[in-house]
Amino acid sequence: MQLPSKLVENAVEEFAKLPGIGKKTALRLVLHLLKEENRATQQLAETLVKMREGIQYCQTCFNISDEPQCQICKDHNRDQSLLCVVENISDVLAIENTAQYRGSYHVLGGVISPLDGIGPTDIRIKELMERLYADSCEVKEVILALNATMEADTTAFYLTKKIKSLEKEFHISTIARGIPVGSELEYTDEVTLGRSIVSRVSYK
Amino acid sequence: MQLPSKLVENAVEEFAKLPGIGKKTALRLVLHLLKEENRATQQLAETLVKMREGIQYCQTCFNISDEPQCQICKDHNRDQSLLCVVENISDVLAIENTAQYRGSYHVLGGVISPLDGIGPTDIRIKELMERLYADSCEVKEVILALNATMEADTTAFYLTKKIKSLEKEFHISTIARGIPVGSELEYTDEVTLGRSIVSRVSYK
Repeated sequence: MQLPSKLVENAVEEFAKLPGIGKKTALRLVLHLLKEENRATQQLAETLVKMREGIQYCQTCFNISDEPQCQICKDHNRDQSLLCVVENISDVLAIENTAQYRGSYHVLGGVISPLDGIGPTDIRIKELMERLYADSCEVKEVILALNATMEADTTAFYLTKKIKSLEKEFHISTIARGIPVGSELEYTDEVTLGRSIVSRVSYK
Repeated sequence: MQLPSKLVENAVEEFAKLPGIGKKTALRLVLHLLKEENRATQQLAETLVKMREGIQYCQTCFNISDEPQCQICKDHNRDQSLLCVVENISDVLAIENTAQYRGSYHVLGGVISPLDGIGPTDIRIKELMERLYADSCEVKEVILALNATMEADTTAFYLTKKIKSLEKEFHISTIARGIPVGSELEYTDEVTLGRSIVSRVSYK
């Protein structure tokens, strides 16, 4: 689509760089901004820049935060004996959203992926080990809550070996894989269904 | 969803003001910006503000433009005897995209909608009349290319009366309503199908 203005074209291109936004959606967003007051665009721009520049990462768990330590790490009511290791900040948000977990977190910031040139030193494995090794560490169980990808499985394997090599004893677990709640056996892919049979849970 | 940072929360709210972007998508966009370099956010913000502040509207047709007159109005190869009246800038883009029209445009900037408090003086009807009335005007046919809504129909009716009241003679037409190319009679709603029978086209 040929646009009648270079300025609009540039704005469309910028919006289209965002994930899930194509050129058509980007154009719709730009036309919306043009319809709105000048102030609206300015506010959007200012808020984004302020957010990007002001954001901090928790020194303990590397979750996003407005302060050196995030609200989760600061909360003394949370179970310090549980540590949940996740790939990204969005995973912390997703787990928090379930309201089923009251322990602490560690955000790796990715997974080991040799194809993308990401090795063990490129994600926060060293920080995790230091945290677990520290004398003040109260963690008893490390929960690996990584995605169900091959790279994540590799990372989980690597982490398990690393954690076991520490001189301290930790219980290591991973989140359950199985058929999602509400779905039917018939329509579940065979890998997931197979795993759910292998890791079946006993009735107590 | 409770967010761990006020800055992120503000940014999510700003993104969610855009059309078609909910809180979840907004959060995905924000997390994307956090993953990217600081520079990316800055560039997005700068481009948007520059666009919003620098944008001009063509003095003739009110299409968006980087100059006082848009590329379409400046193009002397286009048929000046045809004038296509549309609601919004996006309609100009949509029609241009078909590559089936080589005349000029007039962007109304909306339609008459008493329920929303938009009267004939709130959209660019006066400008259209002045343009048609001018001695230099070469327009022979006015094509009303408005949406298929009740407000647009009212506006079309009003415009037709207004144009006929001018001392000059214009041929007035509207874009064809009918079943879309590629769709089946069976699944077309009755109003559209009815209209397409009433406004049937003779084989030549």
